[in-house]
Amino acid sequence: MKIEKRWIVSFIIISLVAITGLLWQHEPASSDVFNTEDSINFADVAWMLTASCLVLLMTPGLSFFYGGMVGKKNVISTMLKSFICLGVISLLWVVVGFSLSFGDSIGIVIDGKTYGIIGNPLQFAFFDQVETKPHQVLGSSIPFILYALFQMKFAIITPAIITGALAERIRFISFLLFICLFTLVIYTPLCHMIWHPNGLLGSYFGVKDFAGGTVVHMSAGFAALAGVIVLGKRKNSEHIPTNIPFVLLGTGMLWFGWFGFNAGSALAANATAAMAFATTTVASASAMLTWVFFDRLNGRKVSALGACIGAVVGLVVITPSAGFVSIPQSMFFGFIGAIVSNKMVYWKKLKQIDDTLDVFACHGVGGIMGMILTAIFAQGENASLLHGGISVFGHHMIALVLVSIFTFGGSYLLFKLTNLIIPIRVSEESENMGLDLSQHGEKF
Amino acid sequence: MKIEKRWIVSFIIISLVAITGLLWQHEPASSDVFNTEDSINFADVAWMLTASCLVLLMTPGLSFFYGGMVGKKNVISTMLKSFICLGVISLLWVVVGFSLSFGDSIGIVIDGKTYGIIGNPLQFAFFDQVETKPHQVLGSSIPFILYALFQMKFAIITPAIITGALAERIRFISFLLFICLFTLVIYTPLCHMIWHPNGLLGSYFGVKDFAGGTVVHMSAGFAALAGVIVLGKRKNSEHIPTNIPFVLLGTGMLWFGWFGFNAGSALAANATAAMAFATTTVASASAMLTWVFFDRLNGRKVSALGACIGAVVGLVVITPSAGFVSIPQSMFFGFIGAIVSNKMVYWKKLKQIDDTLDVFACHGVGGIMGMILTAIFAQGENASLLHGGISVFGHHMIALVLVSIFTFGGSYLLFKLTNLIIPIRVSEESENMGLDLSQHGEKF
Amino acid sequence: MKIEKRWIVSFIIISLVAITGLLWQHEPASSDVFNTEDSINFADVAWMLTASCLVLLMTPGLSFFYGGMVGKKNVISTMLKSFICLGVISLLWVVVGFSLSFGDSIGIVIDGKTYGIIGNPLQFAFFDQVETKPHQVLGSSIPFILYALFQMKFAIITPAIITGALAERIRFISFLLFICLFTLVIYTPLCHMIWHPNGLLGSYFGVKDFAGGTVVHMSAGFAALAGVIVLGKRKNSEHIPTNIPFVLLGTGMLWFGWFGFNAGSALAANATAAMAFATTTVASASAMLTWVFFDRLNGRKVSALGACIGAVVGLVVITPSAGFVSIPQSMFFGFIGAIVSNKMVYWKKLKQIDDTLDVFACHGVGGIMGMILTAIFAQGENASLLHGGISVFGHHMIALVLVSIFTFGGSYLLFKLTNLIIPIRVSEESENMGLDLSQHGEKF
Repeated sequence: MKIEKRWIVSFIIISLVAITGLLWQHEPASSDVFNTEDSINFADVAWMLTASCLVLLMTPGLSFFYGGMVGKKNVISTMLKSFICLGVISLLWVVVGFSLSFGDSIGIVIDGKTYGIIGNPLQFAFFDQVETKPHQVLGSSIPFILYALFQMKFAIITPAIITGALAERIRFISFLLFICLFTLVIYTPLCHMIWHPNGLLGSYFGVKDFAGGTVVHMSAGFAALAGVIVLGKRKNSEHIPTNIPFVLLGTGMLWFGWFGFNAGSALAANATAAMAFATTTVASASAMLTWVFFDRLNGRKVSALGACIGAVVGLVVITPSAGFVSIPQSMFFGFIGAIVSNKMVYWKKLKQIDDTLDVFACHGVGGIMGMILTAIFAQGENASLLHGGISVFGHHMIALVLVSIFTFGGSYLLFKLTNLIIPIRVSEESENMGLDLSQHGEKF
Repeated sequence: MKIEKRWIVSFIIISLVAITGLLWQHEPASSDVFNTEDSINFADVAWMLTASCLVLLMTPGLSFFYGGMVGKKNVISTMLKSFICLGVISLLWVVVGFSLSFGDSIGIVIDGKTYGIIGNPLQFAFFDQVETKPHQVLGSSIPFILYALFQMKFAIITPAIITGALAERIRFISFLLFICLFTLVIYTPLCHMIWHPNGLLGSYFGVKDFAGGTVVHMSAGFAALAGVIVLGKRKNSEHIPTNIPFVLLGTGMLWFGWFGFNAGSALAANATAAMAFATTTVASASAMLTWVFFDRLNGRKVSALGACIGAVVGLVVITPSAGFVSIPQSMFFGFIGAIVSNKMVYWKKLKQIDDTLDVFACHGVGGIMGMILTAIFAQGENASLLHGGISVFGHHMIALVLVSIFTFGGSYLLFKLTNLIIPIRVSEESENMGLDLSQHGEKF
Repeated sequence: MKIEKRWIVSFIIISLVAITGLLWQHEPASSDVFNTEDSINFADVAWMLTASCLVLLMTPGLSFFYGGMVGKKNVISTMLKSFICLGVISLLWVVVGFSLSFGDSIGIVIDGKTYGIIGNPLQFAFFDQVETKPHQVLGSSIPFILYALFQMKFAIITPAIITGALAERIRFISFLLFICLFTLVIYTPLCHMIWHPNGLLGSYFGVKDFAGGTVVHMSAGFAALAGVIVLGKRKNSEHIPTNIPFVLLGTGMLWFGWFGFNAGSALAANATAAMAFATTTVASASAMLTWVFFDRLNGRKVSALGACIGAVVGLVVITPSAGFVSIPQSMFFGFIGAIVSNKMVYWKKLKQIDDTLDVFACHGVGGIMGMILTAIFAQGENASLLHGGISVFGHHMIALVLVSIFTFGGSYLLFKLTNLIIPIRVSEESENMGLDLSQHGEKF
């Protein structure tokens, strides 16, 4: 059996990374930007360790959420594509991803102030300076390594979310290439622009994104849409979900993990974390019920699948606002988000392009709805329409358009580029056989 | 396809709740009963956030524990009934459930002191005053919202436990109606009477219930018994469990989550939590082994199903005493609890009424055994027979009888009432087809 | 149906344990070796409660990791063997296991100093003195009960790891007997020698084992090897894995739980825990990718199974060093560990003896690699080759040989002894039928 060159290159890359890391000369953490270890708050460490564990579990959770929904011949390949993100993105994050996201801002100057578009790629390369001392700004009460780890889990799950749209037809190695490109070109700049203190979208446009509604879900949703357009429809896009208990399990794991995602985004074991926890669970509950009742009103049966998708949509919609709104408001977030996404899932135009597991309708549209609702309701000075007026809201809407163009357009180009390097679609024969057997020699 | 009116009503209710919440005028937390945020202990917050996550996961865990045991045509419908509690009870809890449980006591006056039977429904309606400040009495070191959340998870799992008894024949929408009624009429008063500082059973009868053996398990067990009697036997009550690995998974998730349940009930990251953790795991281990050996002595094979049920019974039995007894005592709890519940599971009379998954034998009887053993062994001043004498024990036994009558009788009436509003049993045709297909159009 | 005497004995043992515990006269914790409760650090308690939960979940996780890999007729029996360790070892640990591991040293005197080989079995029997006060040396900031609990989970998972090698042919009751013997004769002395402050391997040979690479994985790996030799090959050693999603689920649970295992081994919510968390996830990511690429280079397909095994091998390899190395070093650990274990898995000699699920190749060899790499890279004074020179390294290698001989030889004798008492291999007929049905009357 001939081994294609791309696999040899892959192995060489991982060998080089492993050996380079070993030889890398570490810079110690500079005392200009890092506090001493005395400033660590151990209760925050306890919670953030836990939250990081929880967010890690979301990726296997997602693999079950998606894996249970696809056809029988593609269960394992779908699950593996989520799982492998734990490998690829973790390493990429250590090597350069974290630097690009949270390194010193490289960007544009407006009125004498630099607004960051991307971080300095060398600053934290191979986790240089990412040690036990807390950073003065980024997670100032926890070791910087813990901050970097927590953020790592977000970078992992974002491409994992995309997989659902591409299921049943994308080539495995092309997918690996794409997620690397996506992380380097779309995710890390977006993360920098929104969450770095000098980031363009956060500090210039005033965008609020508590836990990644924009950074994670909108970007994944638009990438999914772009991917589907480049990939084309499946040969056979009819199927019944193979294993609904897997979907239920995945939903349970996602919900459980999402508390780490949202309440962990307080970066501390404090009252904000508790509030974010509460809004998260209530929005999800509200969206779950709304979804199943709305399904019924539209003549569909109340289904476990509907309950699961509804719950996840609720989690998506509340994410950017989790720490910024009240409990009853979070109920409304879930309610309205569920109705809009439900409408989108059953919208014919979207069905036609064959987004296998409705990633755009759920994560993309859910992310957009979350961003809009955040721009309306978020508490805090000049945070939103209700707390700052129409101009604040307008700025956020401009940002929404920019993010949409950037993530959709960028992903589209990256999918095209990937396709040039390694064709992203498997052969028709492989597709008919199912990717489990044709790509991985495994069978569910 | 005609949509029945009950679904339209359901959708209207959720719409009203979502919109009312948005418009609700919030009362700020009164400084009379709330401390300032300075009194928050962040280590306690870290643990209670975690514990709340853990308890949430118990409900999906339960769905697998039950789902794996039922027949192939009812796996998904059984799982969904646990899952949907996450939606229904979460919202009900926010709107009025928490108020009914922990609002100011409404009750009876004995010797000039008011003993609460239920809480003031308006006090914390829509989580009014349920904010970041700690309550002076209820979880005084953590934000009140976190206390309310932790308690929410208990309210969710209680009706989810009942589902096992009713599996394979109850109508979905009737079940939704019943759990709302059950929560409002049985769970919240019981919770108030036992856990509110002025509650009748706790402060007058001196009942000790560390983590919900009485509030959660006895009430669910008796409701299950009542439900089975009202529902009647299944047409075909023979089946082999569909998926034992699901049962093992569910047991693992339950065990894991139960640490949040029991050790979390210390409401702090302290030595009591650690003790409760230890008694919990040891009682479960002891019951697991006792169950499988006892099965074998009675001519049955050692089975994975037996190990799982035994472990869960051990968890149930230790729950009311988790923080009140020593480790070796917890071993005895598990041992004796397993033998009694095992006997009940195989008791012919109980088999005849067709409690599908032995909810009464496990949770009801387990809860009763736990309450009795607690009344014998619990440490503390005037806490039990061994630490306070026979009169203390007598009071607890009176309380046990009262709780049994209240939960069984009340649930019986509520099932009858539900049945009047929407017939609780599916048609014979639907039952034969299996609820997965007939109620939800899904298939495992 | 005749009940064999061994089951009656089993039931008598558990009855005696339960009742003896009840009557046991407890010694209070001595103030010589215990601090007051004032010295408890609550943030550490919060994290160690969580970590203990996480490690508990690893055992169900392992049951899925293994259960999904075996043939269809042995799924449940394989899973149950992991699960039952939660019962057996928990109780054994309370009764005497913890004493043997962490009681005052009984051992040999070298230069006037006692080096412990095993702990005093009576010291903490039935968890005497294992209470809420922190031990002065063993987990000095957390209640001693929590330390004992955390260690309990390690003792549970070690025999559970062995099960994978013996799958599809070992008798259930013989397995129970063996794991008791193994825990008493192999695990507890090894644990004492490495982790007790006066232990022979730790304090004389200077062996570093942050989180159990030697204590847990090497010992389980060598016991697996010995077991396979005593048991002999399966009649039919060809099979395809029954359920790869279960393997993925198990891997996810293991990875998630391993953070408790490794980061929890810091025994505190501090910077070391955060570092250990980071090295753990990075080593696992690196090994996962290396494994799948290396598989491909060798003409095998990229498979979900490979990704899972690779990830677990990475976790094994980093375990002894988790808190002692840098992030880029951990990448190298995963890389090199994956290549070596991958080579071993496909090594013909090892295939011939029929280690069903490659436990020796993964845990044994992974543990050895971890121990060697630790002896090369571990930071700290006189900790390793790079930080102390060749003589330190030499000592560690002598220890490695001693541990190998002790765990392999000891386990071999114990398997032989078990076989004398109760034949460890099921009848040929039972094996053909599959253990699920023949041993447990259950079916997947």
